[in-house]
Amino acid sequence: MYQKIAEKYGTPTYVYDFRKIKEQYNKLKSVVPEALIAYAVKANSNLSILRFLRSLGAGFDIVSGGELYRVRKAGGGEIIFSGVGKTEDELRDAAGVLSLNVESLDELALISEMKLSIPISLRINPDISVDTHPYISTGLRSSKFGIPLELVDQALSIIKSGNLSLVGLSCHIGSHISDVSVLKSAYSCLREKFEEIRACGFDLKILDFGGGLSVDLDLQKFGSMIKEVTSGLDAKIVFEPGKFLVAESGVLLTKVLYRKDNGTHKFAVVDAGMNDLIRPSLYDAYHDIQAISGSPNMEEITIVGPVCETGCFLGKARLLPVLKRGDLLFIRDSGAYGFSMSSNYNSRPRACEVAIELDGSIRCIRTRESYESLVASEP
Amino acid sequence: MYQKIAEKYGTPTYVYDFRKIKEQYNKLKSVVPEALIAYAVKANSNLSILRFLRSLGAGFDIVSGGELYRVRKAGGGEIIFSGVGKTEDELRDAAGVLSLNVESLDELALISEMKLSIPISLRINPDISVDTHPYISTGLRSSKFGIPLELVDQALSIIKSGNLSLVGLSCHIGSHISDVSVLKSAYSCLREKFEEIRACGFDLKILDFGGGLSVDLDLQKFGSMIKEVTSGLDAKIVFEPGKFLVAESGVLLTKVLYRKDNGTHKFAVVDAGMNDLIRPSLYDAYHDIQAISGSPNMEEITIVGPVCETGCFLGKARLLPVLKRGDLLFIRDSGAYGFSMSSNYNSRPRACEVAIELDGSIRCIRTRESYESLVASEP
Repeated sequence: MYQKIAEKYGTPTYVYDFRKIKEQYNKLKSVVPEALIAYAVKANSNLSILRFLRSLGAGFDIVSGGELYRVRKAGGGEIIFSGVGKTEDELRDAAGVLSLNVESLDELALISEMKLSIPISLRINPDISVDTHPYISTGLRSSKFGIPLELVDQALSIIKSGNLSLVGLSCHIGSHISDVSVLKSAYSCLREKFEEIRACGFDLKILDFGGGLSVDLDLQKFGSMIKEVTSGLDAKIVFEPGKFLVAESGVLLTKVLYRKDNGTHKFAVVDAGMNDLIRPSLYDAYHDIQAISGSPNMEEITIVGPVCETGCFLGKARLLPVLKRGDLLFIRDSGAYGFSMSSNYNSRPRACEVAIELDGSIRCIRTRESYESLVASEP
Repeated sequence: MYQKIAEKYGTPTYVYDFRKIKEQYNKLKSVVPEALIAYAVKANSNLSILRFLRSLGAGFDIVSGGELYRVRKAGGGEIIFSGVGKTEDELRDAAGVLSLNVESLDELALISEMKLSIPISLRINPDISVDTHPYISTGLRSSKFGIPLELVDQALSIIKSGNLSLVGLSCHIGSHISDVSVLKSAYSCLREKFEEIRACGFDLKILDFGGGLSVDLDLQKFGSMIKEVTSGLDAKIVFEPGKFLVAESGVLLTKVLYRKDNGTHKFAVVDAGMNDLIRPSLYDAYHDIQAISGSPNMEEITIVGPVCETGCFLGKARLLPVLKRGDLLFIRDSGAYGFSMSSNYNSRPRACEVAIELDGSIRCIRTRESYESLVASEP
């Protein structure tokens, strides 16, 4: 299958198996059947993926005007608008969303000044530490996200005096969290605050627990925890999973261009680089790499890309079948934060994206960029 | 000036002062007057910058077919084609370059198989350690770059048997190096090898010392060192500076969207993010930040972008005038590896680029991306 795709579409190419996306969506939905699953568009914003998730019943968690544009282009849906840096244009354009998640008092003040009658939720920063990469831990007070608990009263007075429409609370404490007890303490804190604010006379309807659910999460345990934390509560529960839904669906297909053996180190230079998949460089992320190779022998080899930086690597010292020029590799779990973070660094056209549909058929969902398109905005 | 540009073109916007590029070019040229200065296109590949450097007399150091396309579009010139991962298409398309710098025995073998009659140089890896960020140190044996000294003889036999046209040697040991003695030891090693190979009957003409020259380099000392290292040698000397020529010419203009003061930490959320300038996240790079603010009071504040990651920051705990919504900041030394590494992460359109020309006039050299362009390749 991958060989055929590589022949037809060339490499590097992202391939997403929609059957896996559906499986993940259904798995999560089955343990939180009443909740709105608002897909975190930033993980992979391809229009075909948005349309597919919409067809499954998902809503969308967006963080920019560009994502709002994409979701509308894909047919719209129930939209949560998150993000610490919404511009005035983005706020104006957000009419019709289910909730605009406000991240600061200053943002509240701006919405009040602009006299927007948009439904808003407060994103609370519960100051909870999560054992994850510091770049994607977001629930600490030292992070830029959310409103600290002590400032909620101040937020409520701005809301009252501005006559703003407060409809919910939200939180998001980090990425790929598999520790149910950490999630529970954040969610419990949020529910407590939710009831407290309701008791003050605010008509809250939405309790948004954010995303960050690891694919390794024990879903049964998670489902029971959610039942417990939300028991007796009349509210719409929202989750904002990104990686959980799409990470495992995707692989990045790449071809070996050269082998290098310099005596002490072996390298396979492949045609995908840090511009295509920056996670190994940026987060030190580990992606499993598999090879389609004719060799029965194994060797330890470092997989590097063509970009002119030592930081352009995909995997270090991996045990793989002996590789030669032309062999095909696939970098696993690349469905989230792969293409969406890709760039034209080194003037490299961005990769092609291909879907494996529910019936197993193959469809190109983004064509490879051309050299012409690289300079299209330059006179 | 910056205020006017921000009003006319919006923010975030990259602004490059061509007068500074000219100054840097002339400063370097004055101490190595005979050398070819081949601008490292990957630092900033905007067509207008390429045309400008061409008008000053620069050649180009490229690392991909996309960069080759750009240079030709900008009028062409003397081209050095570097890079560890050249594809067959790129090799075929490279006819007419001054030198193709070969990085591995496997690449030599491919060129031989393809029967290309292109002039080539060997990129030597001198195994020299440079005190810089590990991602941009490239002259160590454990890096993917170049051919180790012990393998040069093997390379020469492939060249002989394939009847390839060897015209030079090159090296490149890392980025922003200001230690002249480190450069000297690499360059001396290369010259020695150059004469050795010439003595074997190869008609070498080009000695390419690569790039990596820091803006803090003592140019007088550097010039004397080059004279010494190349004395009595009949060869075309090549340098491949990138940052040295363009880094200081550029600033990234950005506007304060919100202030956040959560009791222990102060943040200014601005409209430029890690998708616009990834160097602080990726390399922990320090960029000086200045503000255009009405306040006479100073405060320590962290400058963060709108992208939904804790890693989206531009500067931590900077002493700046008290900032408020709408204030303009400029992130200095952003002319190199700024726009060229930028992405559409969070579906953010890429910034506009503006030039300050020699006569002080302003010209847009890349228009801001539109939402429409984000989805143009998606059916």
